Amino acid sequence: MLVALAGGVGAARFLRGLLRRVKAEDLVVIANTGDDATFHGLHISPDIDTLIYTLAGVAEGEKGYGLKGDTFHVLDALSRLGHQKWFALGDRDFATHIHRTMLLRRGHTLSEVTFSLCEAWGLATRILPMTDSPVETRVVTERGDMHLQEFLARDHAEGAIQRVYVHGIEGAHAGPSVIEAILAAQGIVVCPSNPIISIGPILSVPGVREALRVTDAPIVGVSPIVAGAAVKGPSVPMLTAQGVEPSAYGVARLYSDFLDGFVIDQRDAALEGRIAELKMHVAVTDTMMPTPDDAARVADAALGLLAQARNA
Amino acid sequence: MLVALAGGVGAARFLRGLLRRVKAEDLVVIANTGDDATFHGLHISPDIDTLIYTLAGVAEGEKGYGLKGDTFHVLDALSRLGHQKWFALGDRDFATHIHRTMLLRRGHTLSEVTFSLCEAWGLATRILPMTDSPVETRVVTERGDMHLQEFLARDHAEGAIQRVYVHGIEGAHAGPSVIEAILAAQGIVVCPSNPIISIGPILSVPGVREALRVTDAPIVGVSPIVAGAAVKGPSVPMLTAQGVEPSAYGVARLYSDFLDGFVIDQRDAALEGRIAELKMHVAVTDTMMPTPDDAARVADAALGLLAQARNA
Repeated sequence: MLVALAGGVGAARFLRGLLRRVKAEDLVVIANTGDDATFHGLHISPDIDTLIYTLAGVAEGEKGYGLKGDTFHVLDALSRLGHQKWFALGDRDFATHIHRTMLLRRGHTLSEVTFSLCEAWGLATRILPMTDSPVETRVVTERGDMHLQEFLARDHAEGAIQRVYVHGIEGAHAGPSVIEAILAAQGIVVCPSNPIISIGPILSVPGVREALRVTDAPIVGVSPIVAGAAVKGPSVPMLTAQGVEPSAYGVARLYSDFLDGFVIDQRDAALEGRIAELKMHVAVTDTMMPTPDDAARVADAALGLLAQARNA
Repeated sequence: MLVALAGGVGAARFLRGLLRRVKAEDLVVIANTGDDATFHGLHISPDIDTLIYTLAGVAEGEKGYGLKGDTFHVLDALSRLGHQKWFALGDRDFATHIHRTMLLRRGHTLSEVTFSLCEAWGLATRILPMTDSPVETRVVTERGDMHLQEFLARDHAEGAIQRVYVHGIEGAHAGPSVIEAILAAQGIVVCPSNPIISIGPILSVPGVREALRVTDAPIVGVSPIVAGAAVKGPSVPMLTAQGVEPSAYGVARLYSDFLDGFVIDQRDAALEGRIAELKMHVAVTDTMMPTPDDAARVADAALGLLAQARNA
């Protein structure tokens, strides 16, 4: 059984490749919930939905989030009733959020709701929310202290980042099976997601980082930073704000207390020596994943590192 | 100022005609909320929405409820997630229910939500929910005790009706301005709505019937029963179940403690004498309202009766 720590779009694209190499039922994905938000009174889990839609093959390809070919009648009508529409939610996507909110209000947990959605979409891969506790990733810029989605979707990531934190994380409990999956895994992959707002919240859930340190499973990561830039999103200013070198090396170092191997892009080949000094195996490949075939190539590199670490 | 007691489709069609004769801002509509229901975790107010959509000129003409040209992507997607879809809700209609539910959860009253919807649709006519208290019209048939919408929309009004009751009505409070409007009105019209499930719940709100009895305003009704049949819906079996003669006379008698006049259909002209014995003025006309012009003709009859009662 393989475990993946995952954020949204970048992780989902990588996992699409990984699933060409491992059986769907042999993969467990621990998903970030720090960017969950309430819009229009409905509970939205952007990363979980991106993972589900992508693995189900129904994600909007270009943006990476939302459903392919979705319409926007509900959002347009809400806008006419005076509500904000900067967080793009399609009609069929709304059904997901209505379903989730309804079940949560009935007392079900986010883990149970996520399971029901995976079942509905016919996914054999289990997606585990990192926590069922309400947590919220917030960004402090000179404009103020705001929800991550306000920063990303409303403000288009504008404004100098001063600090990123996950409200409520200290009191959060790891979701059911999250710690168990980490401890029982035969291999763990940290997906190429934003280290601060996607992987960071998962690592901050009490018990998760400790479990990663003590598990017998080899753990490898895939760098989300290529040649000092993020493939997508504000990883670089966020790493910088947190005092982390915005490079593949900086990310490897951030994870070095539990990482056994790191996949970096060929454009970062020069960093291989420095990263190896962190006592981890390094694989160098083209980490761009425009297609599932490309993602499978990156997955091969990660799986190769897992085997290497296992045999070391 | 004119007050109308209204259910859904029949009332809305009549009011469309009445509004050709009276200024929108001079009309206050007291709307039934007994058929409100929760679907998909959202608060639906079918009669209020039918009134708003119809008066705003955006109602689906043929069915009389829902929005013209609405699509059904959300409902279809909810259905794929295992939810019932027998209560037809369009995408733009969903926005109304999401808006309402969001405001109610924030602590706003149904009256406030309704006002916000009327404002958003540019209606000068005030629509007052009969109550902000949660009440629920229920129907008992041999199949069981069920919500009115389960009987109407799910079971297509099949099953012999044993009893109709409004759960929670004894403890309900009349909505803000409801009693005041009745007492201050210059005329009151009871719309041609189902006497048991549309007008009945309004009359059952503590204080409403008493206010109708004591107000100085003349009160006239329009018969929803024509030649012993309802124009739409299960009025006849419901009247019968409640021990009321299913005719224009039976309805006039049901309202006779406060009614000063009654508009009946020309096909019921023979009932004029019996109804007049109930000490009310009677107008006979063609009460079918396929077009707003037809509705205006029926409105003229009602307004004529109001004037007659006022001068008596």
